[in-house]
Amino acid sequence: MTVVALAGGVGGARLCEGLQAVLPPGDLAVVVNTGDDTERHGLLVCPDHDTVLYTLAGIADPTQGWGIAGESWTVMDRLAELGEETWFRLGDRDIATHIARTARLRAGARLTEVSLAIQAALGVRSRILPMSDTPVRTRVLSDDGWLAFQDYFVRLRQAPEVRAVSFDGADDAEPTPEVVGALDAASILVICPSNPIVSVGPILAIRGLRDAIRGARARGVRTAAVSPIVGGKALKGPADRMLASLGHEVSAVGVARLYAGLVDVFVIDAEDAALAPAVEDLGMRALVTDTIMVDAGARARVARETLAALG
Amino acid sequence: MTVVALAGGVGGARLCEGLQAVLPPGDLAVVVNTGDDTERHGLLVCPDHDTVLYTLAGIADPTQGWGIAGESWTVMDRLAELGEETWFRLGDRDIATHIARTARLRAGARLTEVSLAIQAALGVRSRILPMSDTPVRTRVLSDDGWLAFQDYFVRLRQAPEVRAVSFDGADDAEPTPEVVGALDAASILVICPSNPIVSVGPILAIRGLRDAIRGARARGVRTAAVSPIVGGKALKGPADRMLASLGHEVSAVGVARLYAGLVDVFVIDAEDAALAPAVEDLGMRALVTDTIMVDAGARARVARETLAALG
Repeated sequence: MTVVALAGGVGGARLCEGLQAVLPPGDLAVVVNTGDDTERHGLLVCPDHDTVLYTLAGIADPTQGWGIAGESWTVMDRLAELGEETWFRLGDRDIATHIARTARLRAGARLTEVSLAIQAALGVRSRILPMSDTPVRTRVLSDDGWLAFQDYFVRLRQAPEVRAVSFDGADDAEPTPEVVGALDAASILVICPSNPIVSVGPILAIRGLRDAIRGARARGVRTAAVSPIVGGKALKGPADRMLASLGHEVSAVGVARLYAGLVDVFVIDAEDAALAPAVEDLGMRALVTDTIMVDAGARARVARETLAALG
Repeated sequence: MTVVALAGGVGGARLCEGLQAVLPPGDLAVVVNTGDDTERHGLLVCPDHDTVLYTLAGIADPTQGWGIAGESWTVMDRLAELGEETWFRLGDRDIATHIARTARLRAGARLTEVSLAIQAALGVRSRILPMSDTPVRTRVLSDDGWLAFQDYFVRLRQAPEVRAVSFDGADDAEPTPEVVGALDAASILVICPSNPIVSVGPILAIRGLRDAIRGARARGVRTAAVSPIVGGKALKGPADRMLASLGHEVSAVGVARLYAGLVDVFVIDAEDAALAPAVEDLGMRALVTDTIMVDAGARARVARETLAALG
């Protein structure tokens, strides 16, 4: 059973950890959002890829939702001394990832090749595939104008209301051979509990990728999505406020509506059990379970139940 | 009294430290060799600039002749894990220098601007001026063919015999406005005890810079050079073997001969006192003193005596 997961950052990484735990080695391919990617100090930083990378390598910081456990900050402190901006914090081990990645890209390698080599070096037994090898950059429209995603997300701590989002480069981006190959080989597709607007949104904004997903579904690939909204709130991040300011219903049903026609099973939390009929009205089956993935056991359980629901 | 020093790595940095100690703040400009510069992991590393930088900032590693005292190696260890080459060791604080430099160059700044900003951030009160803003790259011809300088110097530990040297890019390189300005303002020029072939050689290989030095001398600027060869041996590095394999006399006289017509005073070690007449036969005055700069006191003394000899 080959599974392709679509994922953004923390919530996505947790379900991927569960999927990796319950699947045979090599059976999981994760397509990650690259719309959050950003150049910091001349180095390409891929936050969603790296959160999934460090999580699947078992070295993710357990509390802060990004970076590597037990990091040191020597380079960052020095960069601050040299007058570099430091609102986007990068640990020493993490910086090595960005240095190696940027050097190899500048030497002509594709982002996917570079990413797979770094994953292999860290002993990750799943494939984490950037959604595209060419840059796609998410921007959000605030009341003060357009903001680069990390300006909004990290520098301004998601304070501005988001009036619109844009995925620059998505129109020209092609799905990679690796993503197309993974979708061709997949029997199951899982949309992780990531922000539907700015984590899953950019992935689905790549026309060729959306077409490949529709092609996979036409061939019988079954799809599940796990709601990132529980009890009307995002488990992490600004998904709830973003759904609201963009005119969507702030609930599991609001997310399910965004995925209508794309998924067979929609997983909602026990707390939202009353929403199951409204989800099923959208033409998908509702799976009601405890979706809060506090530890490895919970992550594996949610993964197992999600896969089982697809039969 | 404005002094311009021409310097390469360790020996040059030591005399510069002495010059900075005995001159009023701001009166020293150091023109550094950039022929040793190299791109490591996509980052521009400027070994001679940085050795002078860290020495003049008072943070140089006191024993190894490069890098910052008390360094940590977290990034390098991680780069090794990621499969990057690691024969050129870079400490964490040092890497911050290369990251900031490379980012600012890529953003369009000149190497000189970037270097001066980094020096200011580290509180250096002299100016350290790259000999050129455009790349000049030293290569050496070994019996196995041409080698990039750091391949020869670090990776192969200077084992190959050097049959020829080449300064790629020197023909097209222009002296910077800052170097020209410093030479225009100078009353004294000091050639540091650096390798005459591959440290001072690249500086003098830039035609415009050599012309500017000749112009300064024509205006009455007096020049001293300090021998890097004592008792027929290089104090550090491969200068002695390089002089031999390139057909030069391996002695202070051999070095003086390379600078004939350029210097007024040539400083040789007390151990080489017997060579003074041969030096003076080349049309320069020989200053005989203890040139071994073991500590800050000795560095200041050599600087003071050298300046006094030109007085």
